[in-house]
Amino acid sequence: MNHPLGIDGLQIEQRLLALAQCGRENGQLWRPSYSSAERQARGLLRDWFQQAGLTAYEDSVGNVFGRLPAPSGKTVLTGSHLDTVKNGGAYDGAAGIVCGLAAVEALYQRFGPPSRPVEVVAMLEEEGSRFPDAGFWGSQAIVGETTPSELDCLDSSGISLSQAMTAAGYPPEQIPSARRDDLSHYLELHIEQGPVLENKGIQIGVVHTITGLGLLEVRITGRADHAGTTPMDMRLDALQGAAKFLLRVPEIAGRFPNATATVGTFQVAPGSSNVVPSDVTLLVDFRAPREDDLRALAQQLTSAALELRLSGHTVTAVQTMDIPPAHLDRELSLMQRQSARELGYSVTEMLSGAGHDCQLFARHVPASLLFIPCLHGRSHCPEEYAAPQDLARGSEVLAATLYRLAW
Amino acid sequence: MNHPLGIDGLQIEQRLLALAQCGRENGQLWRPSYSSAERQARGLLRDWFQQAGLTAYEDSVGNVFGRLPAPSGKTVLTGSHLDTVKNGGAYDGAAGIVCGLAAVEALYQRFGPPSRPVEVVAMLEEEGSRFPDAGFWGSQAIVGETTPSELDCLDSSGISLSQAMTAAGYPPEQIPSARRDDLSHYLELHIEQGPVLENKGIQIGVVHTITGLGLLEVRITGRADHAGTTPMDMRLDALQGAAKFLLRVPEIAGRFPNATATVGTFQVAPGSSNVVPSDVTLLVDFRAPREDDLRALAQQLTSAALELRLSGHTVTAVQTMDIPPAHLDRELSLMQRQSARELGYSVTEMLSGAGHDCQLFARHVPASLLFIPCLHGRSHCPEEYAAPQDLARGSEVLAATLYRLAW
Repeated sequence: MNHPLGIDGLQIEQRLLALAQCGRENGQLWRPSYSSAERQARGLLRDWFQQAGLTAYEDSVGNVFGRLPAPSGKTVLTGSHLDTVKNGGAYDGAAGIVCGLAAVEALYQRFGPPSRPVEVVAMLEEEGSRFPDAGFWGSQAIVGETTPSELDCLDSSGISLSQAMTAAGYPPEQIPSARRDDLSHYLELHIEQGPVLENKGIQIGVVHTITGLGLLEVRITGRADHAGTTPMDMRLDALQGAAKFLLRVPEIAGRFPNATATVGTFQVAPGSSNVVPSDVTLLVDFRAPREDDLRALAQQLTSAALELRLSGHTVTAVQTMDIPPAHLDRELSLMQRQSARELGYSVTEMLSGAGHDCQLFARHVPASLLFIPCLHGRSHCPEEYAAPQDLARGSEVLAATLYRLAW
Repeated sequence: MNHPLGIDGLQIEQRLLALAQCGRENGQLWRPSYSSAERQARGLLRDWFQQAGLTAYEDSVGNVFGRLPAPSGKTVLTGSHLDTVKNGGAYDGAAGIVCGLAAVEALYQRFGPPSRPVEVVAMLEEEGSRFPDAGFWGSQAIVGETTPSELDCLDSSGISLSQAMTAAGYPPEQIPSARRDDLSHYLELHIEQGPVLENKGIQIGVVHTITGLGLLEVRITGRADHAGTTPMDMRLDALQGAAKFLLRVPEIAGRFPNATATVGTFQVAPGSSNVVPSDVTLLVDFRAPREDDLRALAQQLTSAALELRLSGHTVTAVQTMDIPPAHLDRELSLMQRQSARELGYSVTEMLSGAGHDCQLFARHVPASLLFIPCLHGRSHCPEEYAAPQDLARGSEVLAATLYRLAW
């Protein structure tokens, strides 16, 4: 194992901890888009970009860029998102920005200006943690895929995205100018947010596919009855119906390679200990890397829910989200694996079970997503952690690939 | 079928509807103890008692009585509770008071004064709907079973039972004088609150046993993980564990005659669609008419919950309530069935799956509980309904038994 560019994991860690002070209150981190915490974080990034010799600028929605110019050629872009979920961690998103900067900075110091433009980007609202219906807002603006209806999305205080942009000095009518038609490649580094690399003891993951995602809302209605006076055989218990369905969920997911299906939202009404439940409402989050499998999952989960009608329950099942899988560029993935292997790092191809800005870029340019291990696979929580040596290794791989593409 | 005393079901219905105006707001009925709504209802009852020739009075906790005196003998008491649950109905509790009065009134008109004292009672806070930890407050006071700690129970506004009593003019230090040692029998009429009589087409139920009741609080802990990035075989999903337990609950109840077991309260945390559930908290309401069966139910339900430890979950199961079954007086039950049969009504012995004031009296004097059918077994809701002819039939049976005991 070697770090030929000498990228310093401890400096990356220090920068991540400095960013994590932007939006920390009562020990909890939340850095929503168009907030003062985000403005403060952008200020840090602009300073670091300038200190590294990059030209710092913002686009019309507020994405922050650091640019190394070149006389000609399309731009190679690397980075990730700047926003965090509520009570989130210091690494999700931010690691991709700071490692991207570390890679570009090291290359610039060692090899001077690139042969084509290279930029580092910090994007807005990937998580949708302020505007739940406007996730991927920053990357959508860059690839020109925002929709006007998203501007009406509200945050929890009833402020619309449009109002928030205007208040922060980014008038929505300027959104179209954020679109970039000058990009050649997009590279993103991200913590894995899962346990696979750690469990297998592998240092670098190169993502071949970002899984597709569906949400199925299931409502099961039975009949509320007195828990003491209604004999067991005269009941229509919605929770008993739901329990049967719940056990089908992992069984159905198991039919498809690398699929998941999870019920995380589950409500029982009326919710009194002495009343037989009349209603259960639940959400199934299901994911699969193959589009056919995603469709089949939706169909088989729906069918399993509707089977409860046979026992007398009223059941509805409605798919409320349908995001197809994103297949990342094979050639670029190969290049990333070669970079890792030449550096002496263990590397594997893998699936991303979570969504990333990368999937937006993948529709337009060759795009690649690198994973580094994170402690116990934990993410979206204060315990989120990636070790300095893993941050450095990821940056070295990213740098080696950027070198092939742009120096 | 005959109504030899000519008890008028329509008059009973009118009185019940008049009582149901006491505590009705925005179309919803709630008559909590020591409220102005309850005071208003007590006023109506005192008027009706007096019009019927009974002496109206209140005891030191606020239970209202109508008394027909006699030169000697212990008192036969009939009645039920005056409080209702939130958004409750006009029949639960109130029917037993108004039918009791109708029976005593008809007997007095036909046969004059009884040979031993007879009283009709309207009792407080059976439901615990204002003070959840002080259910059966009125009947406990009459049998001398209140506990000092109950006085500290709080309502949802933070007012203690002690404060509420004082404010309503019933100083708590007077509670002991509510105790009655002069009772010979207690008879209660109540709507069934279940579907058995209606489904079987039977007019009168004579309860032999009020079921025992236990509550088991089960907490199942797994591990929160990202729903997209955590493979299905690396999870410890608390909701999947809970689903397995849920399906065991009716199976275990089915092992014991006339037992029920119900999970009506069920909470899942953290409750996000994209996070594998880490925690489920649920309450099992379990009931059985035999004390041994109640113990065995508690033990087998606990054991089924703890079995989830084998799959890696952390599980606790704590019994938070344990009310033994109440066996009602056989001789008095036989008398009630004879009364019903002589009147030409269909009658069955049955179990009460819900608790009633009667179970407090059953520990001290021969006590009996009569059920009349209610529409679709519904109760504790605005749709609660018992037909005038069923109210009249119940009153006639009650009157025939009262006649045997006291005239």
